[in-house]
Amino acid sequence: MFTADHAVESAEAGERVILVRHETSPEDIAGMHAAQGILTAFGGKTSHAAVVGRQMGKPCVVGCGAIEIGDAQFAVGDTVVKEGDYVSIDGATGEVMLGDVETGDSEIIAVLKGDLSADDAEVYQQFANIMAWADDIRTMGVRTNADTPEDSELAVKLGAAGIGLTRTEHMFFGDDRIINFQRMIISDNDEEMQKAADVLEEYQKEDFYGILKAMDGMPVIIRLLDPPLHEFLPHDAEDQAELANMTGKSAEDIADLVEGLGESNPMLGHRGCRLGVTFPIIYKMQIKAIFEAACQLKKEGLNPIPEVMIPLVSLEGEYTICEGYTKEVAEQVMAAQGVEVDYMIGTMIELPRACLVADKIAEMAEFFSFGTNDLTQTAFGFSRDDVEGKFIPAYISQGIIQVSPFESIDQNGVGRLLEMGTNLGREANPELEVGICGEHGGEPKSVEFCHNAGLDYVSCSPLRVPIARLAAAQAEIKNPR
Amino acid sequence: MFTADHAVESAEAGERVILVRHETSPEDIAGMHAAQGILTAFGGKTSHAAVVGRQMGKPCVVGCGAIEIGDAQFAVGDTVVKEGDYVSIDGATGEVMLGDVETGDSEIIAVLKGDLSADDAEVYQQFANIMAWADDIRTMGVRTNADTPEDSELAVKLGAAGIGLTRTEHMFFGDDRIINFQRMIISDNDEEMQKAADVLEEYQKEDFYGILKAMDGMPVIIRLLDPPLHEFLPHDAEDQAELANMTGKSAEDIADLVEGLGESNPMLGHRGCRLGVTFPIIYKMQIKAIFEAACQLKKEGLNPIPEVMIPLVSLEGEYTICEGYTKEVAEQVMAAQGVEVDYMIGTMIELPRACLVADKIAEMAEFFSFGTNDLTQTAFGFSRDDVEGKFIPAYISQGIIQVSPFESIDQNGVGRLLEMGTNLGREANPELEVGICGEHGGEPKSVEFCHNAGLDYVSCSPLRVPIARLAAAQAEIKNPR
Repeated sequence: MFTADHAVESAEAGERVILVRHETSPEDIAGMHAAQGILTAFGGKTSHAAVVGRQMGKPCVVGCGAIEIGDAQFAVGDTVVKEGDYVSIDGATGEVMLGDVETGDSEIIAVLKGDLSADDAEVYQQFANIMAWADDIRTMGVRTNADTPEDSELAVKLGAAGIGLTRTEHMFFGDDRIINFQRMIISDNDEEMQKAADVLEEYQKEDFYGILKAMDGMPVIIRLLDPPLHEFLPHDAEDQAELANMTGKSAEDIADLVEGLGESNPMLGHRGCRLGVTFPIIYKMQIKAIFEAACQLKKEGLNPIPEVMIPLVSLEGEYTICEGYTKEVAEQVMAAQGVEVDYMIGTMIELPRACLVADKIAEMAEFFSFGTNDLTQTAFGFSRDDVEGKFIPAYISQGIIQVSPFESIDQNGVGRLLEMGTNLGREANPELEVGICGEHGGEPKSVEFCHNAGLDYVSCSPLRVPIARLAAAQAEIKNPR
Repeated sequence: MFTADHAVESAEAGERVILVRHETSPEDIAGMHAAQGILTAFGGKTSHAAVVGRQMGKPCVVGCGAIEIGDAQFAVGDTVVKEGDYVSIDGATGEVMLGDVETGDSEIIAVLKGDLSADDAEVYQQFANIMAWADDIRTMGVRTNADTPEDSELAVKLGAAGIGLTRTEHMFFGDDRIINFQRMIISDNDEEMQKAADVLEEYQKEDFYGILKAMDGMPVIIRLLDPPLHEFLPHDAEDQAELANMTGKSAEDIADLVEGLGESNPMLGHRGCRLGVTFPIIYKMQIKAIFEAACQLKKEGLNPIPEVMIPLVSLEGEYTICEGYTKEVAEQVMAAQGVEVDYMIGTMIELPRACLVADKIAEMAEFFSFGTNDLTQTAFGFSRDDVEGKFIPAYISQGIIQVSPFESIDQNGVGRLLEMGTNLGREANPELEVGICGEHGGEPKSVEFCHNAGLDYVSCSPLRVPIARLAAAQAEIKNPR
């Protein structure tokens, strides 16, 4: 299927689907969820399709330059594959095969899913054995990056001891939700905005309830909204007219708003805690939902441990402002509900400046989580969407680098920022909890680097959790701490 | 006038012109040159219009949100100004006035231009006096950022002792040039590319000849091509068809190429020395032109001192490769011409990673010039085009910052990177020449910071040179070095 909508329709009709796109964007999330696998013509290991696909545990072939995508079809040379035809993909090798190749879960996943008994699964038994040895030895924690209760449960089965990153942006893309999110953005005044936020709060509460419940007794870092608002608004005239229709605004106003929100470099634009400073209603809505959910679970006898993460801090004052109302809202909710919940407030360290002033931030923050994807982008001045398919291969072939810095952490540059941030942070606040939630958290060499840098934990997508456990043990053997 | 073309036509017809644009881009350069002043509805102090306008010494009012630009007109409330009507702008106050307000050079500029005798100009005499005192005291050099012989000459009259930054990208936008630049980009193979480059080389040689001549005996830092290639190609179908027509390519191929070169975050994309690694023909053409021009001047009895600057280095290997062929081409040209020219090769330090590995880079580089505009963008994760008009004003009003970090250097963050880069660089290479060529080089507090950090010089646009000279003297008085 060549659009997210078609993927969803097909899946609803009971078909298995490969979603084929030039590149994916957050608007494709529903289609990616509906699909068995994703195939893109552009992008690299850290492009949207790859990161989200990995997170979802779905096979994904990205940057498949051989396919030429046309109107509801793609071609490879003379071979044309039309929408509805079968193809199969192998996410491990990057192969795209004509026809419907039979697939199945690995033994390990089959056991974890309960489809196979451990007694009948020798590979699983060996896996479990090695993991037990690794856990005995390692001194660094392993958490997971998960945005849904299902992913969280899978990660726990794979050995995760908490969530290092829950991204909240995907949560707004469901059909009932996106319209309310859009209402919130296009509102003319705070009252209107608050009204839309109140509707969203109920959805968010459900989201957080599910995840905190799945992670009962374990810490769950929830990142407040990160992407720029224009990602949530329609960009073509037809969809804008529909939105105008549904909200009683004029299509022209919406077009103007979308144009006004447009950015030359969205990666470096109005996003992260910058939204928290300028549109506190959005963050407060999320915070309220987190604590409403946590309080409810507490009343049900569970032990939720939410950790609120303020993203993209570069200036101490950004943290002060966002932390201020986070505490305020948390205390208000807990007082109203009459229960106390263990919680922390901290920040994602993902900009060079944050590493340089980490001592100032750590005077306030209870935890740091290094967002090494964005830190790599800003330290190098590399937009990962733009460089991986373009000059990174030439850099590798010319020996400028051995491996993409988005795959394995760049120890001499980004790694030094991480060490600087960790050391400055701990000097100011010896209790500071320090982890990493970039994709590097599941890559063995980067895990070793994090061990040596003294991090408390690494966090990675569920299916990489076992790799991180093993790498952490190997790092401890090489360099006991 | 509401388009660059109209501005050029009007100027050619003998009219004085204010160019009015939503925002300017490199494609507007000819119109900006033709105009007396520039007025934009969007942007901030470091947007294209402001930076280039300042460099050109042209009054500029940017981010004038009060004007609503329509079809060949703008409106402020009920007042409509049509193309061809007179308006006047005051770049110092940001005022936009209806009608043709009389203007004149300041006394100082009038004397420097030779339009007024110094004897008749008391303000000029006081200025010259203060500048002489400042020059006696200051220990830090002052250079200028200039892209033309005219700007260079003005800067020398204003006291600049060299050029800290010559940007070469504007040089490609003349009518005869852009087509050859485009031929170079859209070429199908190296031979075609080289052929287009050979044509451009002649133009570039003229450019560098003029500037090196104007700066006889003084160092001139020339930055090799910096912006991404898509900035030089037409984006609409009509212009693409015209280009296809002129070059014998298919419009479809050109459209595909433009799409392929498109970037999500051009600021962090395929630009700077990344082009030097992947398209060495372009850089080699520029280097050859620099040394051909310098050799010719040398033969004419002058003393050109070119300093070749490799931009946007983050990885040591990028520098190695670009430096390698720079030396090679320089030596080849000098051998062929039979003269020796004093020259240096160095780099612009404008990415956080470069500051962290400055020791490795300084083992090879002869000079560092801090590009604090881009360094500020990447250290903060702020795209200046996107943040200045959006949340920076809110940050200032909420006390998160006192002043935009693009205006005055952020001493705790960006400043620490600058100090780190300087210290690491000098440890590895005590002879390293270190300067700054970001817009901060003309801002008094930043000049003081650079003095304290031990920089050899600051470089700024011509009209800010006197300010920098004064600020450098004040810094020396406060903190002698």
